[in-house]
This record gives sequence, C-alpha cells and structure tokens, in this order.
Amino acid sequence: MAARMWFAGKLGETGLATTIDGIGNVVGRSVGDHGKVLLLGSHLETQPFAGWLDGSLGTLFALEVVRAIKEADLPYAVDVGAWADEEGHFGTMLGSRSFCGMVSEETIDQARSKATGQPMREALADAGLAGRERVVMDPARYAGYLEAHIEQGDFLDSSGLRLGIVTGIVGIRTFRLASSGQQNHAGTTRMAARRDAGAALLRLWQAINSEFEANAGPTTVWTFGRMAFEPGAPSVIPGRAEATFQFRDEDPDRLARLEARLDAAVAAANHAGPCLIESTLMGSVDPSAMSKEFQEALERSAERFATGAHVRMPSGAGHDAQVFARCIPAGMLFVPSIGGISHHPDEDTADTDIVLGCQVFADAVVSLSEMPAPA
Amino acid sequence: MAARMWFAGKLGETGLATTIDGIGNVVGRSVGDHGKVLLLGSHLETQPFAGWLDGSLGTLFALEVVRAIKEADLPYAVDVGAWADEEGHFGTMLGSRSFCGMVSEETIDQARSKATGQPMREALADAGLAGRERVVMDPARYAGYLEAHIEQGDFLDSSGLRLGIVTGIVGIRTFRLASSGQQNHAGTTRMAARRDAGAALLRLWQAINSEFEANAGPTTVWTFGRMAFEPGAPSVIPGRAEATFQFRDEDPDRLARLEARLDAAVAAANHAGPCLIESTLMGSVDPSAMSKEFQEALERSAERFATGAHVRMPSGAGHDAQVFARCIPAGMLFVPSIGGISHHPDEDTADTDIVLGCQVFADAVVSLSEMPAPA
Repeated sequence: MAARMWFAGKLGETGLATTIDGIGNVVGRSVGDHGKVLLLGSHLETQPFAGWLDGSLGTLFALEVVRAIKEADLPYAVDVGAWADEEGHFGTMLGSRSFCGMVSEETIDQARSKATGQPMREALADAGLAGRERVVMDPARYAGYLEAHIEQGDFLDSSGLRLGIVTGIVGIRTFRLASSGQQNHAGTTRMAARRDAGAALLRLWQAINSEFEANAGPTTVWTFGRMAFEPGAPSVIPGRAEATFQFRDEDPDRLARLEARLDAAVAAANHAGPCLIESTLMGSVDPSAMSKEFQEALERSAERFATGAHVRMPSGAGHDAQVFARCIPAGMLFVPSIGGISHHPDEDTADTDIVLGCQVFADAVVSLSEMPAPA
Repeated sequence: MAARMWFAGKLGETGLATTIDGIGNVVGRSVGDHGKVLLLGSHLETQPFAGWLDGSLGTLFALEVVRAIKEADLPYAVDVGAWADEEGHFGTMLGSRSFCGMVSEETIDQARSKATGQPMREALADAGLAGRERVVMDPARYAGYLEAHIEQGDFLDSSGLRLGIVTGIVGIRTFRLASSGQQNHAGTTRMAARRDAGAALLRLWQAINSEFEANAGPTTVWTFGRMAFEPGAPSVIPGRAEATFQFRDEDPDRLARLEARLDAAVAAANHAGPCLIESTLMGSVDPSAMSKEFQEALERSAERFATGAHVRMPSGAGHDAQVFARCIPAGMLFVPSIGGISHHPDEDTADTDIVLGCQVFADAVVSLSEMPAPA
C-alpha cells in the first residue's frame, strides 16, 4: 500500500486523474478529450523476498513516459495502471482482469491468500480499500495496452541482446499428480509385494519426461516443481505421493498435443499398476498473441535505438498484457535480466539497458499514439 | 511406563527378581543357581498410532513360558527382558545395547527424542527413572537369547506358512541424497539453461533403480522413503531437492556391492552435471546371523507342531536379537502378519497362529535349556 500511495502521488503530480480502486489497482487517467489513448502499465507487487525490478520497472517506465510528455509538452495522452495481484497471491491476475471487467464480486468474496488463507475482502479492508468501487475500463477508450518488463529469463542476457519484442505469452497447463499405494515397512515388504506410491510417481516422471523430450517444441518448458512423499521416513514405503507438473508453450496446438501425451502416460501408468495415479488440472492459461502492429512499432523503435540488438520472442512468464490482449491490442517489451535471475534479491538489469528500454518504450508510445491532445 | 509396570508386576508374580532399570529396560531374573539360562524377550514400545502385536507379542510369549514353567513346576529357568527404545525413538536399540554393555553414559546424555527433541535424560526423569542403575548382563550367565515376533511382512501370510525361523537379520544402509541447483522461474528459464535440482535427483533415481533392479538379490529391498523439492511451487524450478534412499540385504558382500553401485551412480550424475548431488550415509547396520543351533532347535519344534508349515527366512526388519547376536547365540521365531501389515492399527495375527507360535517358542526353550534348576 505504501508503494501504491507513492505511485498514485507521482501519477497525480503529472496531472493524471488518479485513484486506488476497490481491488487495489492504481489507475491514472488523462483528462480531456484525446480520442483513443494508449494504456501503459505493469504491477507493483512481486513475490515475497524477491527482486527490485519485476513489475516495478514497467510501472516506472509508464510514469516516465507521462512525465516526459508533460515536461516536453507533447501532444500525446496516455493512461497508466499498476495492476493488483499480478503475482497471484489471491487469484490469477485479479487486478488487470478486474479492470477488464472479468472479475465478479463473488470471485473476490471467495478469494483467499494462498499463503495465509486470509480472505481477500479482509486484506482489502485492512488496506483501507473496503467499499471502494472498482474501476472498469471502456475498451473503446483505448488504442491498446503497452507493458515493459524484465525478461526474467536468460535468453537476452546470454545472447548479448538488449531488447525483446514479445510475440505472445505462453499458455500454461498445471497438473497435480497424486499417487496412492500402500504405506508399509521398508524392510519386511518384498519388492514384488509393494504398492509404493513414491516409486509409481517416479516411474510416471520417467515416462512423462521421455514424452516431453521427444515431443517438445524449441521453446517448450516443463517442470516438476513439487514432489513430496508421505509419510516421508527412510524406513517407510510411501503410501501417498504428490507432484506438480507444469508445461508452457506459445502454440495452442502443441499445448494440446502435449496434454494428450501426459494423459496417455497417466493412463499407461494406471493400466500397469499397482498404484492409482490421479491427474488433476490445477490451472490452465491459453496462449495470448501480441498485436502484430504493436510488435512492428516496438521493433522499429528498438532498431532505431539498438540496431541489431533486439529479437522477437515469446514470453515464458505470465503478464497482465495477456489479459488485456483479450480485449484490446497489446504489446510488450523486454529488457535483459542479468544471469536470467528473477524473483530473487539478485534480480538486476544493467543501468544502460534500463535507460535504453525506457527510451524505446517511449518511442513506441509516440509512434502508436494516433491522436494529438487538444492544443 | 504403565505397560512396563504392568509387565514387571506379572514377571514378579512368577518369582523372577524383576526391576525396571535406568534406561527403562524391564529385566526379570530367575533366582538361585541354575547354571546357564536362556534369556527371552522383545520390546513393549512400538511406533505412534501403530498396532497391538509388534514387540508386545514376544514379551508375552516370554511371560507365558515363565508362567508355564512355574505352573508345571518344570526344572528349567529363564530370564526375561523387555528392551527399551527398540523402535529408535531416542537412538538405535538403546535398551538391548545398554543391557549388552554397548551404551555409554555420554550416549544417553546426548540422546534426544527424534520427534520432539526432548533430551532422553529428561524423558527418563519424567518417567521416574532418573538416577537408577542400568542392568548390564554377564554373557557367561546365558546360553543364548530367544525372541518371538510378528513377521511384519507378508511372506508367511501370502505363502500359507505359519512359522518363520529367522536365519539372520538384514543389514541396512541409509543415505541422504541432496541435490543443489539454481532456483528459477519455470516459465522463463529455457530447458537448456536450467540447473533443476529436482530433475537431477529424478535422473539419479532412474540410474539407481536400474542398477538395483539389475544387481539385487532375491530378498534385497530398496526404498526411496522421502523425496522433497524446494521451494516446492508449481512455477518454480527447484533449487534444492532431497531424498532418502535405503537398502537392506542379509548378505554383507551384496550390501557392499550395492553400495559401490550407488556411489558410482552418484559420481556419474555429478560428472554429467549440471547439479551437484551429495550422498551422505545416515545409518549403517551390519547383517546379524542367527545361531545355527538355535535355528535347528526352532525348526524341530516348528516341525513337531506345524509339520511342513514353516520356513527359514531372513528378517527384513531390525530386532533386538541382532544386538544380542554379537554377544551370545541368538534365535528368532516369526508368526504371520495378516496381509503383511504392521506399524498400523490393522496389524494382526490369527489367534491360532499366536497360540501355535507360543507353543513352538516354549518347546524350543525346553529343548535349548541345557541345565535343570536345582530341585
């Protein structure tokens, strides 16, 4: 909330009509009749004990563009937003989805902190936001949405490139794989008599990993992020085991083919026995394509300020831009993450890359601004 | 302590000189000069929320033998012990090892509850045992040690057999396998750039499992009892992962060969990279052979009361008999565990098998008792 109030104050100083709304979005709107305007933004929150650039960089680029327009008295107008809960502490991009009119009051009633279980309503009340209206956009107001962000991967950094023009944001499928067997004594239970839930899950990992190695595309990623055996003692055969399995790809057809391979691997494991494995879809995000026109504008600006040092690339991480892409044209610009490190105190980007990124972002805003503000 | 006091009272009623000693062993000794006597026993404690027979069955068989000798006024004398902490709540078979003179005061000073961290000294004081002497045996007093126990596996039950004559108690090697990589974003980090500690540990599981499938003996067992990834979130590449790996075999040479295979698999994983895997020996128990003479006596008694329904077999679980086997001749008799279930409230053995087991156990005591008591 301190960051939100600071940011709202800075936006207000530029002349934007600024509010913190009922879900915690900071929204600054240009006043007067400008015709269609661009919406710029990102998010202020990050993960616990994470870094200084994630989200914040994009909101400050937006602020800097508004300031530069004001200082130079340029005939462009933009709106700015800092979207709540992009990190999913309470839901899935609740802030940008709320602004796009995709979040009901019932969804907020039911949302709880994934870390503490605290109801979102209570957290909003604690933050002094109870009873405030939520601001919902009129899509007709906007020429589109532009967001800058750190890459959060090592592709730009390891390739010696300075800017990424995002082609689309990958779709994500997240599954819980739960294996049920028979907990038993690890000394007295013969191998042939075991129903080892842990071993069953490990065999399934082997099958899934082979399928994905054989069928993945060049930018597909897949991750077993969690693996836990119960009861988890050295001398006890696990009676239950759980894993999370997630995969991401920009291509909706490839996502569907990989999901079918996963389903087949689980079915084969259950056919082979002796444990029962249940696969549950925990989350599904469809790929979002960025606007071709916005990609071209960003690429032109990138080429102007960093000739040959930019690339078109998918985003492996989720971003608010994927929500906006369902309603209005959207575009994203990446700057390098040193060593690919993000969500960690070591998260950083070279000062020169931050300055370059902001320059290119501002230049693209200018080239995409259709309508001069009234004199 | 209630069970110990009840059991001490029952032993005392039979005329044994009975004490609960400074480590919680219940020891009942026959009085008078009998020459060498047999020591019978097992343990009264079990795991939390476990079953009714583990340990208790063997102590009650011993009590029943003493009662039967007294009731029938037979010229045999035996001592009885119920050994503390066989389950390893504070250490490794501290009770029987203390009775065999293998536990120093410093070991007890340092022992702590594995569940709560409470010092064993404090637990002994809470139980009213502070300052009591520990009873240490004179090996010259004993012809040997005999213990009855439930099998805790399904071999007898699934084979339709009623008695197991234990040939030896398996050796155990327990390792902690810890993998260190780089925690990172599961969407933005390309597969080729990952140092996924979880995936590294899963590949090591695959290698170890293949080695053990190829090199195990007919009764070798191996278990990954614990597997945990950190931080354990669906969208985060694990930066650290840990597993426990345990294997057991009766043959010391095979144990050594399997340990060498494990070491080679870890070395190969570290050579391949990109994560570092550390293998740490957490525990090592050498196999214990049971006395051939005791095996023959138990087999003769088994054949007499259950013709053809008995088998020689190793014990996959640890038992106090393995401690005694280092000092005096030792033997063990198994009765079936229904469904192989143990350390669980469903743990059970058919009444007829309990009665048969006690009859065979008593018969073997008689045949092994070298010296009649003085008239």
